[in-house]
Amino acid sequence: MGDSMVHFGIIGAAKIAQKISRAIALTPNATLLAVGSRSIEKALKFASNNGLSSEVKIYGSYEAVLDDPDIDVIYIPLPTSLHLRWAVLAAEKKKHVLLEKPAALNVVELDMILEACKANEVQFMDGTMWMHNPRTAKMKEFLCDAKMFGQLKSVHSIYTFGVESNFLESDIRTKPDLDGFGALGDIGWYCIRSILFAADFNLPKKVIAFPNPVLNESGVILSCGCSLFWDDGKLATFYCSFLENMTQNMTVIGTNGTLHLTDFVIPYTEKEVCFSTNSKYESTSSEPLPNNHTIPTDLPQEVHMVMEFSRLVKQIKENGSEPEEKWPAMSRKTQLVLDAVKASLDQGSEVVEVGTV
Amino acid sequence: MGDSMVHFGIIGAAKIAQKISRAIALTPNATLLAVGSRSIEKALKFASNNGLSSEVKIYGSYEAVLDDPDIDVIYIPLPTSLHLRWAVLAAEKKKHVLLEKPAALNVVELDMILEACKANEVQFMDGTMWMHNPRTAKMKEFLCDAKMFGQLKSVHSIYTFGVESNFLESDIRTKPDLDGFGALGDIGWYCIRSILFAADFNLPKKVIAFPNPVLNESGVILSCGCSLFWDDGKLATFYCSFLENMTQNMTVIGTNGTLHLTDFVIPYTEKEVCFSTNSKYESTSSEPLPNNHTIPTDLPQEVHMVMEFSRLVKQIKENGSEPEEKWPAMSRKTQLVLDAVKASLDQGSEVVEVGTV
Repeated sequence: MGDSMVHFGIIGAAKIAQKISRAIALTPNATLLAVGSRSIEKALKFASNNGLSSEVKIYGSYEAVLDDPDIDVIYIPLPTSLHLRWAVLAAEKKKHVLLEKPAALNVVELDMILEACKANEVQFMDGTMWMHNPRTAKMKEFLCDAKMFGQLKSVHSIYTFGVESNFLESDIRTKPDLDGFGALGDIGWYCIRSILFAADFNLPKKVIAFPNPVLNESGVILSCGCSLFWDDGKLATFYCSFLENMTQNMTVIGTNGTLHLTDFVIPYTEKEVCFSTNSKYESTSSEPLPNNHTIPTDLPQEVHMVMEFSRLVKQIKENGSEPEEKWPAMSRKTQLVLDAVKASLDQGSEVVEVGTV
Repeated sequence: MGDSMVHFGIIGAAKIAQKISRAIALTPNATLLAVGSRSIEKALKFASNNGLSSEVKIYGSYEAVLDDPDIDVIYIPLPTSLHLRWAVLAAEKKKHVLLEKPAALNVVELDMILEACKANEVQFMDGTMWMHNPRTAKMKEFLCDAKMFGQLKSVHSIYTFGVESNFLESDIRTKPDLDGFGALGDIGWYCIRSILFAADFNLPKKVIAFPNPVLNESGVILSCGCSLFWDDGKLATFYCSFLENMTQNMTVIGTNGTLHLTDFVIPYTEKEVCFSTNSKYESTSSEPLPNNHTIPTDLPQEVHMVMEFSRLVKQIKENGSEPEEKWPAMSRKTQLVLDAVKASLDQGSEVVEVGTV
């Protein structure tokens, strides 16, 4: 494998792009080559606010970034309703696509994006950062332990945070024409992903949303929840809200063990991360304290994401490898469940089979 | 207040009675006077297994304990289907009633018990031990903090444990004629209580059970869950199961703060207990670690329960006080929700209004 860098371009100056621009800077095999916004002023302001090197090219349009022949990867933090257009265009320009979540407005649109990536032999990945935290692989080891964890029985995820009133009035995530999923897409996405992760990406058979979701005046979801069911009796629940104090709990229960953490999306600290387990085979005393696992982390999880994406892009560029299929497959399954939950919410908490909407 | 002891009698030799007999022994103002079982042999075996003093009277019937004029309190750990008969009889014999949970087969039966207690001016309390843990009052302080916690938005409780196969075959909690609620009554009771506790005992308006509860061959609930709703938009969920690893999570989320603990029913240790909080007003850094609260506990929570019950009984005996109404009121509200959840389960997860079944 060569020593060449993977060149990133960012289209859109969203707040999340700050995190990714920092992550690219911290990634050894990646470099930020260009930033484009709808106006040159916005792009310049983004560069200035984020202390970008003067070598980063500043473009006054998204198209200009896509047309830059030196760019390998387009990172797209645009509102969900713009994903289809810009992700497909990027793929058609032979750019690899790192796409913010929720991936698309529905699985039909996502399939158009994924097909464009496949046809153009570019890598696709969504921006679910916690999947790349070294902790996630350690958690998987526990969940795969047939003795200590046993067989998966249920998963329970909660992700809430309280937004300020100006968010409720002006953030794109509360505008039906920009991010129609609201809290479900923005943060429920992580809950759904955590459930699929725990279930080894076996899709639930059906979902039933909790009744009475909280909607804003435009009908955008501010709080909602759902129960999910598999044919073998497994169950999951999740709850997400823009209206409650920051809480990010993930609890995975097996026949023999339990995995638990309270910062599954954004870890409390960047220096080390924790999760706890208990198992009926661990507790020998009558006072079975949970086992706390601490994992030192040299780099924030978003850097691990950019590193992994860059590694795959280098393999494609330099070795002629095929794009890695597991990442688009995870995105698609998450979207399928998201679509089913949205349909159940729209239908007044009717039972909805996953993959039928 | 005098120095006289409160005299307890136990009817039934259930496993939980071992814990209470130990708790009575550890309670300064209480003493175990008698144990009765359906046969003198069973009662003797219970006394021997629990190292009871030779001064404890051993009776071969429940009636004999009720007829003992020296006994103030009857502790009833019998199967739920026997609660109505024996709790009413105990009250009619002017005995104070400490009753294991679930309190009754339904609120109609519970009301007959509570009316008998009221008519005979005896104290009633159910055996929900964690309510008496010193931690519970500390948690309440946080939940009442209008700044740090804010307004209650949602509660999420999970209580599961994995039983052995002989439990599933022979335990009373899996027999429809003995404990028809199964896991819902035995452990869901605690989840419902935790939700009511967090909601300051304001009843939810309606409940909707999760579909697909796991039942045994006799139709007794082994796993189930429910979502609960208030008119003001508050929401709660709980999940309980006999088929999964020990997990006991309680998460209470307000507009400004979150309370969380993972041993809410049976604390990990008897020497100290913990819970964690976070609040948007606590976290000044970008790495908002939760605040862990540790409370030293001199005595197990079941001792605190026996102490509180004995204190109330002494006030009635010695000062002519009225029985404390808050404890039966809590039991009745818990039973009302339990009945609604059971009705929703029986009706295939239909919406059920609390207090209408």
